[in-house]
Amino acid sequence: MEKEVTIYDIAKELSISPTTVSRGLNNHPAVNKNTKQKIIDVASQMGYRSNTFASKLRKQRTNTIGVIVPRLDSNFQSCVMAGMEKVANEAGYNLIISQSLETVQKEIANARTMFDNRVDGLLVSIAYDTENIDHFEPFFSKGIPVLFYDRVPEHKKCTSIVIDNIQAAYKATAHLVEQGCSNIVHISGNLKVNVYKDRLKGFKYALMDSDLPFSESSVITTNLNEEAGIQAAKQILQMNPRPDGIFVANDNCAVSCVKTLKQAGVRIPEDIAVVGFNNDPITRVIEPNLTSVDYPGNEMGEVAVRSLINYLDGMSDVSLTNTITLRSELVVRESTTRTGATGAVAP
Amino acid sequence: MEKEVTIYDIAKELSISPTTVSRGLNNHPAVNKNTKQKIIDVASQMGYRSNTFASKLRKQRTNTIGVIVPRLDSNFQSCVMAGMEKVANEAGYNLIISQSLETVQKEIANARTMFDNRVDGLLVSIAYDTENIDHFEPFFSKGIPVLFYDRVPEHKKCTSIVIDNIQAAYKATAHLVEQGCSNIVHISGNLKVNVYKDRLKGFKYALMDSDLPFSESSVITTNLNEEAGIQAAKQILQMNPRPDGIFVANDNCAVSCVKTLKQAGVRIPEDIAVVGFNNDPITRVIEPNLTSVDYPGNEMGEVAVRSLINYLDGMSDVSLTNTITLRSELVVRESTTRTGATGAVAP
Repeated sequence: MEKEVTIYDIAKELSISPTTVSRGLNNHPAVNKNTKQKIIDVASQMGYRSNTFASKLRKQRTNTIGVIVPRLDSNFQSCVMAGMEKVANEAGYNLIISQSLETVQKEIANARTMFDNRVDGLLVSIAYDTENIDHFEPFFSKGIPVLFYDRVPEHKKCTSIVIDNIQAAYKATAHLVEQGCSNIVHISGNLKVNVYKDRLKGFKYALMDSDLPFSESSVITTNLNEEAGIQAAKQILQMNPRPDGIFVANDNCAVSCVKTLKQAGVRIPEDIAVVGFNNDPITRVIEPNLTSVDYPGNEMGEVAVRSLINYLDGMSDVSLTNTITLRSELVVRESTTRTGATGAVAP
Repeated sequence: MEKEVTIYDIAKELSISPTTVSRGLNNHPAVNKNTKQKIIDVASQMGYRSNTFASKLRKQRTNTIGVIVPRLDSNFQSCVMAGMEKVANEAGYNLIISQSLETVQKEIANARTMFDNRVDGLLVSIAYDTENIDHFEPFFSKGIPVLFYDRVPEHKKCTSIVIDNIQAAYKATAHLVEQGCSNIVHISGNLKVNVYKDRLKGFKYALMDSDLPFSESSVITTNLNEEAGIQAAKQILQMNPRPDGIFVANDNCAVSCVKTLKQAGVRIPEDIAVVGFNNDPITRVIEPNLTSVDYPGNEMGEVAVRSLINYLDGMSDVSLTNTITLRSELVVRESTTRTGATGAVAP
C-alpha cells in the first residue's frame, strides 16, 4: 500500500502553507474560493483521505452504530435495515451489521465484537433462545446506549421499540369472530420470545371477551417456517370438530398452511378463515389474498436509529423513554372475508 | 463516559505485571492457565476492551468491509447480505453497509464515506443509473480492492461476481419454445444495467437459434416493479396476434403480470406460458407456481467476501481473477408446463 497522503504533501504540491490547506479542506472563511477549489481538486487527485478515522479515535466517537439481527434474509428485517440505513446515512453514521442466526451463542460473540469495535450505540433484535441479556452488561456499565426493537427483552436499563403485539393479535382474532368463526386455532412461535408470547395473549383475551372457550389444544407451537405451516395444516385437518378460523403468528407459515388446506379441499375463507401477521408481499400473491397485520419494518428501523442518535447527541435520555410503540393495523383481505368488504381496519 | 480500563488497571487489581496481563490476554504460552483465566475474568468484570480499534489504526487495517447495494429491502439482496455476513463474521471482519437507493449520486457519497472510513475492501452492486465508475478511482489508486457483484460495470481493474445472464435467459426462452410457444414477449429492466442487457441478449439468441423472428416490439422495457407487471400485462392483452409466452426479467414483475392476465381470463400456461427470474419465494405461492431462474444470492454473498479476504490476505490477486461466474438453473414449474413434467433443468 502507498504512503498516506497528508496535508503537508498537498501544501508542498500547491506551494502554500499546511495551515491554509487544512483551513481550505475545512471550508474556513479565511481561504478564498479559488484557493479552496484548488486545494480540494489537488487533494482529490492525490487520493487524500480526511482524517475522520483518527479524529474519531481522539473524540472517543466512531460514528458507527452496531446492529444485531436474528437473520438478514427475512422480509421484515430487510425492511428494518433499509429504514435504519437511510436515517444513519443522512446523519453521517455507519451501520455495522451482524446476524445471530437465532442462537444466543452467536449473539454473545457479536456483542463482544461490537463492543471491541467501539460502536457508539447498539440496536438489537434478540435471538430465539436468548433468555437473559447479561452479554450487553458491558455496554450498560459503560453508558453505551442499547436499543432493542421488535424482539425485546424485559429490562429496565434499555429502550424498546415495538408494536403492541397483544392489541394487534386481539384485533386479528376479534375479526375472525366477527366473520362468524367460533372454533379458532392459533399457530404460534417460540413462546419465550416476547412477540409470540404477546400474540398468544391477545388471542386469548379476544376469545375471552367474545365468550369463546380457550383450550391449550387450540395453540400449535412451531418455528413458523414453511414446513411448520404444512405440518400445522395436517394437524388441523385431523381435529374434530374441525376449526373454522386460524390466526397464524407470521405470513410465511400462514401461506404454506393455506396451500396445504386448499390441497385437501378446504375452502378459504368459507370453511376456514385465515389471518397472518407481518403483511409480507406474499399476502397479495396467495389465493385468496391473506388478511394480515401490517408491521411497519421500515419505520421501526428509522425510529430506532433516530432515537439512538438523539440520545448520542444528548437530545434525549435513553433510560427515560422505556418503550416506543409504533402503530400497526389489520389489513383485511379475501382469506377472511365471509360477510363484509375488504380494506384496512383503523387501529 | 467512564475512563477506559487499561491493562495497567487489570495488573493493579491482580497485583501482577502489565506484561503478564498483556500476555495473558493474548494467550501467550509463558502464562499459566489459571493466571490466564483470572486475567480474562477480571478484564471482563472491569469492562476492559481489547485494543482492536487502536491496533487496527497502527496496522493500517480496519478489518471492515464496505458494502454498497442498490436497495436493502429486496429478497435477492437480503440473501446476499446474509451470505456476506456469515463469511465475514467467521473471518473476524465487520460489514459496513449502505444503500444507493438506485441513484449514482448516493452511490458516489457512499463510496466517499467508505473511503474516509478506511474500509479494507469494498463490495458493490451498482445503481440503476451508474454509467461510469470514476467514483471508485480513489480505491483503485490506493490499491484497495473493489469487487462488484450481480450488477457490475465493465472495467478491467476489478473482479466481478456474476451469473451467466445470457445463458440463463437463453435457457428460459428455449424452454418456452420447447413448450410450443412461438410468439414470445420479453419484459425487461433498464437496459443500461448489465444483467438486463444480457438477459435480453439471451432472449434474442434463443429466438434466433429456434428460427423465430425477433422484433423490437416484443421487448417491453420497464422498471420491473409490481405496477410495471400490471401495465405490461395490459399491453400484452392488446397485442394482435396475442403472445403465447412471456419471459420476465424478475419474479416480482412476473407475478403481478400473471395476476393481471388471470383476471382478464387468460389461462396460464395454456394460453400464455410465463417464466420469471430470481426464484424468489413468491414463485411457490402464485398460482400456477412460476417457472424461474434460480439465482444463488446467498452463495454470491459468501463468494464475494471470501474472494475479498483472500485478496487481503495476499492469497490471491484480485486483478488476475477478472470474473467469477456462479451456476444458475432454470426451475420448471406449472406456469410453463404444457407438455412435460416439472423439476429442475440442469445447466
